[in-house]
Amino acid sequence: MVRPCVAARQSARVLSGRTRGIAGVAKIVSLNDEREAKREAEQEARKPSFDRLARLVDADMSRVNQHILDHMQSPVALIPQLAGHLIAAGGKRLRPMMVCAAAQLCGYTGSRHIGLAACVEFIHTATLLHDDVVDESDLRRGQESANALWGNQASVLVGDFLFSRAFQLMTADGQLKVLKILSDASAVIAEGEVLQLMTANAPDTSEEDYLRVIRSKTAALFAAATQIGAVVAERPAKEEEALSSYGMNLGIAFQLVDDVLDYSADQAALGKTVGDDFREGKVTLPVVLAWRRGDAEEREFWRRTIERSDQREGDLDHAMRLMAKHGTLTDTLDRARHYGAIARDALGLFPQADIKDAMLEAIDFVIDRAY
Amino acid sequence: MVRPCVAARQSARVLSGRTRGIAGVAKIVSLNDEREAKREAEQEARKPSFDRLARLVDADMSRVNQHILDHMQSPVALIPQLAGHLIAAGGKRLRPMMVCAAAQLCGYTGSRHIGLAACVEFIHTATLLHDDVVDESDLRRGQESANALWGNQASVLVGDFLFSRAFQLMTADGQLKVLKILSDASAVIAEGEVLQLMTANAPDTSEEDYLRVIRSKTAALFAAATQIGAVVAERPAKEEEALSSYGMNLGIAFQLVDDVLDYSADQAALGKTVGDDFREGKVTLPVVLAWRRGDAEEREFWRRTIERSDQREGDLDHAMRLMAKHGTLTDTLDRARHYGAIARDALGLFPQADIKDAMLEAIDFVIDRAY
Repeated sequence: MVRPCVAARQSARVLSGRTRGIAGVAKIVSLNDEREAKREAEQEARKPSFDRLARLVDADMSRVNQHILDHMQSPVALIPQLAGHLIAAGGKRLRPMMVCAAAQLCGYTGSRHIGLAACVEFIHTATLLHDDVVDESDLRRGQESANALWGNQASVLVGDFLFSRAFQLMTADGQLKVLKILSDASAVIAEGEVLQLMTANAPDTSEEDYLRVIRSKTAALFAAATQIGAVVAERPAKEEEALSSYGMNLGIAFQLVDDVLDYSADQAALGKTVGDDFREGKVTLPVVLAWRRGDAEEREFWRRTIERSDQREGDLDHAMRLMAKHGTLTDTLDRARHYGAIARDALGLFPQADIKDAMLEAIDFVIDRAY
Repeated sequence: MVRPCVAARQSARVLSGRTRGIAGVAKIVSLNDEREAKREAEQEARKPSFDRLARLVDADMSRVNQHILDHMQSPVALIPQLAGHLIAAGGKRLRPMMVCAAAQLCGYTGSRHIGLAACVEFIHTATLLHDDVVDESDLRRGQESANALWGNQASVLVGDFLFSRAFQLMTADGQLKVLKILSDASAVIAEGEVLQLMTANAPDTSEEDYLRVIRSKTAALFAAATQIGAVVAERPAKEEEALSSYGMNLGIAFQLVDDVLDYSADQAALGKTVGDDFREGKVTLPVVLAWRRGDAEEREFWRRTIERSDQREGDLDHAMRLMAKHGTLTDTLDRARHYGAIARDALGLFPQADIKDAMLEAIDFVIDRAY
């Protein structure tokens, strides 16, 4: 969003410099600068963000964070150390926030969502720990990953602990419906991860298979999180479904945009290196589309770099040029917008409310963070 | 048990050969042979085995096996392949058999124990998969381990899947008490594994810490398995406790004997290599005791081989000589007998029954397989 404005301002300066005297130019430039600054500030204010949602669930999230800290304790010192490293590193806690937001949207006034939000974060953290082992990642959210610091063994086992702890929290909640939602989601996540492993390094993966992977490994937990909000509030099945659909489609959009961001130049700010997915030979939609739209020579490039992991200096740049040529990043974002639109309509059932507006804005944020 | 008999028979032959003529000798030898063969057969029949228990739960176990096969299916082909490899390799299915035996002892006539026995086996299989990744083992029950065949990544993720599937099975059963027993056991197992990782390669580990590890990582699941038998049969708390104690103490004895067997020469038959634990620097009770009883020079040997993993030709033999010198294998077996005795008394609550006798015999088998 910022760059087009800067460009416009610069061309305004150039234009005005050409046609007027120095003093006049200075005055107009200053006037233009003011106008532009105001316009930018307005745009910035309109720029969708997650802040509103975060503010609305802030009180709940303090309790969730405390719950997380309390329940990652163990007499075995390495467990809170390692879990604390990952949980303190933070991330946005999107998933537990979604539990709280959905509960609020459903007018829930009890406390069950606190423990269940913590439980969802534990499941997520366990999968991150195991993911890093599987991906052999050294960085996670810009910090050294747990496996880089403590080794794969500790990451596998502490992941198992957090996963078991999540099931203890669910059992403490005691509603079988919630247990079913979360144990089903866990099995689907694991299935998705295995499917991803099987499609790894295959640039001719179909868009359907790719979608199946991200539905399972990312979106299923979002869907479970938002559905739980309706379940604890004892809302009718239609609202449960609607919230599950919101979470599922938001989760798909979220992962699609993440996959685009991996090839975007602004990633240093997010603590990610550009091209991680490429270097790991991960097949994401930008690659799937580039392979399908590419000619024989281009496909050979993808086979060499992704399938045979034979990568050389300049390959990442070439990959990004091919994506630009075929517009695969733009089109992946279009796909994300499609799922965002479904998520938006899913909330149509619910009457206007601050939290509803914030949840709708969250969809825009998920998509717009790509700019 | 066999060896002393053979020795007795041989000395009987020698004796008789010395004092009688050739024909008489032949006759007496033949008579002696018959007597000895009969005595051996009797002893063999008396030799404790797991067969009686296996026979008594045979019908149940067929249903459990079918349940396991049905529920390890997934559209993601790698999951049944990998899970099937491990589950088909078999092992003795001790844990699900324990669920069935305990249910039978409690006079249970329903079907809930079938699904729960499968669930216990899934948890066990998941921990085996993750263990092999953590230990970097290439063999499991004499076959190539899953991680050697499919890689660590698949083992981590399929382990996660089986674990999630176990929770789906528990949720399908639907009793919160069972969910609590099994999710608590899972968390304790994971804690025990992390503790084991932290005490790995430390020959000065205390006997208490070692016991804490095996209680958690091995015995807790046996205890949960047998307790569940009482829970599904809705027996009073005292019987639940008694069965949990039986499982816990049998599990401890089982692991102690396993640790002895790792240094016993008869291991090829079990598909294990002698000295695996030693080579991996695993600190088990035979080592803990040898370190405590050793002099400065011996401790330096353990530090070099176990702590610094600096092992040379002949080190395993030397380790076994030190264990023999200090009697640490024998004493570890004595400790196992102690826990076996507690398991035996725990069953004192229950009236005589075939299944009770079989469960008592299982204790003897667990300990006697060391001979």
